Amino acid sequence: MTASSSARAAFGASMPHLDAASSEPLYRQVRAHIADAIASGVFDAPGRALPSSRHLATEFGISRNTVELAYQELIAQGIVESRPRSGLYATDRLPRRTTTKAPPTGPATTMDWGRRTRCRPQDDLPHAAKVVDWHEYPYPFVGGQIDADTFPVKAWLRALGEAHEPPHLHYSLRDSLDRDDPLLLEAICVEVLRARGITADPSQILITSGAQQGLFLVAQALLDRSSVVGVENPGYLDAWHIFSRAGATLMPMPVDQFGASIPAAPPRLDIAYVTPGHQHPTNVTMHPARRRELLELAERTDAVIIEDDYDSEFRFSGRPTRPLKAMESAGRVIYLGTFSKFLAPGLRLGFIVADAELIDILRDQRRYLIRHPPGQLQRALALFIMQGEYHRQLRRLRTQFKQKWDIAWANADRHLPWPVGTGPTGGLSLWLTGPARLDAAVLARRAAKHGVLVEAGEGFFLGPHRTRNNVRLGFTSINERAIPRGIEILGGVARTLLAERPD
Amino acid sequence: MTASSSARAAFGASMPHLDAASSEPLYRQVRAHIADAIASGVFDAPGRALPSSRHLATEFGISRNTVELAYQELIAQGIVESRPRSGLYATDRLPRRTTTKAPPTGPATTMDWGRRTRCRPQDDLPHAAKVVDWHEYPYPFVGGQIDADTFPVKAWLRALGEAHEPPHLHYSLRDSLDRDDPLLLEAICVEVLRARGITADPSQILITSGAQQGLFLVAQALLDRSSVVGVENPGYLDAWHIFSRAGATLMPMPVDQFGASIPAAPPRLDIAYVTPGHQHPTNVTMHPARRRELLELAERTDAVIIEDDYDSEFRFSGRPTRPLKAMESAGRVIYLGTFSKFLAPGLRLGFIVADAELIDILRDQRRYLIRHPPGQLQRALALFIMQGEYHRQLRRLRTQFKQKWDIAWANADRHLPWPVGTGPTGGLSLWLTGPARLDAAVLARRAAKHGVLVEAGEGFFLGPHRTRNNVRLGFTSINERAIPRGIEILGGVARTLLAERPD
Repeated sequence: MTASSSARAAFGASMPHLDAASSEPLYRQVRAHIADAIASGVFDAPGRALPSSRHLATEFGISRNTVELAYQELIAQGIVESRPRSGLYATDRLPRRTTTKAPPTGPATTMDWGRRTRCRPQDDLPHAAKVVDWHEYPYPFVGGQIDADTFPVKAWLRALGEAHEPPHLHYSLRDSLDRDDPLLLEAICVEVLRARGITADPSQILITSGAQQGLFLVAQALLDRSSVVGVENPGYLDAWHIFSRAGATLMPMPVDQFGASIPAAPPRLDIAYVTPGHQHPTNVTMHPARRRELLELAERTDAVIIEDDYDSEFRFSGRPTRPLKAMESAGRVIYLGTFSKFLAPGLRLGFIVADAELIDILRDQRRYLIRHPPGQLQRALALFIMQGEYHRQLRRLRTQFKQKWDIAWANADRHLPWPVGTGPTGGLSLWLTGPARLDAAVLARRAAKHGVLVEAGEGFFLGPHRTRNNVRLGFTSINERAIPRGIEILGGVARTLLAERPD
Repeated sequence: MTASSSARAAFGASMPHLDAASSEPLYRQVRAHIADAIASGVFDAPGRALPSSRHLATEFGISRNTVELAYQELIAQGIVESRPRSGLYATDRLPRRTTTKAPPTGPATTMDWGRRTRCRPQDDLPHAAKVVDWHEYPYPFVGGQIDADTFPVKAWLRALGEAHEPPHLHYSLRDSLDRDDPLLLEAICVEVLRARGITADPSQILITSGAQQGLFLVAQALLDRSSVVGVENPGYLDAWHIFSRAGATLMPMPVDQFGASIPAAPPRLDIAYVTPGHQHPTNVTMHPARRRELLELAERTDAVIIEDDYDSEFRFSGRPTRPLKAMESAGRVIYLGTFSKFLAPGLRLGFIVADAELIDILRDQRRYLIRHPPGQLQRALALFIMQGEYHRQLRRLRTQFKQKWDIAWANADRHLPWPVGTGPTGGLSLWLTGPARLDAAVLARRAAKHGVLVEAGEGFFLGPHRTRNNVRLGFTSINERAIPRGIEILGGVARTLLAERPD
């Protein structure tokens, strides 16, 4: 029997259907189909090998990588084994079905959890529509993700290894209740914050499970149903959800080329949430005059400022700007930092810098949420920073991102059917404004079918006045070499789309 | 100059004071004193070595380990360097002070964060008084911590290493928004839950940052100010805080030798929170008749049961008991699991098993709290489990814990000045009841001065009726060899204490 007919025999008369539009990634669908075939007993005959990934890829009409990933997982689970110089075989780990479908395991649930849920969020904000399996696309211009090639695997594993030796091992393993790793707090004060012009001591820092947990903790502590939070518009959707779920009303602050515009005298303002380093999503750096205006407004209204500084160090012309936190000493600014852009978002490590009194309040809350972010990641990051690897990685990324940034702008200028202008001075994405008749959501959907993932700008707007002609191209996730071709394809799709809808 | 006089010269006429009662661990105090001396410039003379750890230990009157840990951190920070065959020297990384005290860096804060805090928890429950630096005591009988020697460093680092290779690397690094690692979900279903008699599929599982986050998520979703939660008394203090902060009223269910007693017909019951495997803190296993009673009560009152199964697999006589989750199919039981006892609490990995509909609600909440527990820990744990290391570790720990359990009971019987009885059939601590006149809080304080850390039972009780004569000896944190001497010292302290207060 040839491998190809073996594949067909395994799956019955016709190959199972793969749904490319499903939220379930392709390789998982393939994996499920293989597991299904194994469970049905087709491969139980002695010496009966599973179809090779090459043949399955041809039969399914997908890439061989996808099939290999499916097999990798099945091997890791012990469902499939690889015999050297022979091929892949089903083990007996997966119970075989005697009927085609497994019977249900018990009566259906009668609980109606929707009815039981008390604190259902009331907001009608959209959720950020992110593609989780962006790495299966050849041209992923998505925000907030990193190209695995840029991750310093060796240095990070070395730090993790050291974190598992005495005297560090104890700190990696212990339940520290509400405390953080003292070494990481020191490392952040000395190596991370000083370079940004911020003076802080360990009592003013709390480690968070991503900057997002920082937002949650501050919102939970300082907001209630009477609160008003000023937010940049367009802005960071996840933050809006968090404020809104804490009961607050959102007050949009429109963004122009100088950053968020500062309202004159709102009747009430509890928190102003800003991204002054590079505004999310437009990458505009907040002008010094605006910064002063914002600090004055906060003082006048007795409001607190949350400064979300996720990437101010990635400025490609001129020096990085000074954080708001370094411009005032009253303690009015709560500063959020993250290691997602320097290392990886999957690490889930960020930090809050604020007055020690507030940090204590937030620490007490965190104790009953998660206790503390994992000890071994805290200790490994501390060692990584102290050994100079953080600054090395920062320098490496700055060079790499600058290159990608230049390539992306040059290709956008060459391939997109509208003038792209010069752009701001930094940031990790391109925020592009097409002609007024461009529907970027349609562009994004169509481009995805050609393997190009971009984000429609519409989703970053609050309220009814959403511009539909913005498109965002993140470049931290895509490999440098893929950028030109990706933008060329996007340009082609955009040209066709615009031709369908002339002015 | 001898090393000893060098130490004295460095710190001035008299050695600085170390405060053994401070919450700041000793080695941190030592570290601060050394850093202080370096900043003052005493060690700037060329060729001037820092005092050796042996001499500093003598001068401070503390263990050499403690000084070495202080130096380790200073070296890791680049403040001290070790020159082979010569000794330790101050680098120029720490700025030198010209005045004795650094000037304040700005005006004092004016923010009054206490006043600004909206959602201040209203509960008057005590916080669990845990000693975080228990490892600096020679006889730490504390709960919820592990002896670092029992952690499978090699196998865990191997799994972490693999998690940083393709195809796993992508899953370790990515921001997966609200999703968990599919491989870990499978591993838990197949390798962890089946052995406990629980049938679940990946849609019924959510990975949490410790079982504690599971409690928080369920409380946030299902409780409000009108809710009533039945809790075991004595019980798990941290859970009470979480329910109480979610607004619920706690209804104590007294614990006897069969587990929690089930109330006949409470006017309202939203959640019953129980630890049936081994009741926390008494280690009683809930009797099958009580389990049935509890399931019936839940059905009658339409309540939900949270089953916190942190260690049911550590039963030392007879087979592990079947979880409540395996005894019903209506979906009324929300099951919480943790890897804190099998690996390490510092890992912060646990999971919830519940109806898929509820899991979706909790997943949505988690998205705006932390997104997801770190990808690399999820993937490493998945590989660790799938390679059989989880079951290997479980078998190893079962043997070890059984041995410690036997040693602890035998020594309690020999050394404590009251009859200890036979104890329950498992669990990771001894819950001991002294004579009625024993004040266990005083016992714990005095024993700590002799290097023996135990927990007074009083802190585990809810409401005014707290028995004061219970003491809890956890044995997961202490090395097996230290158990006999530790209990002998405790017995001596107890004897003296009881002699002071005759009947």
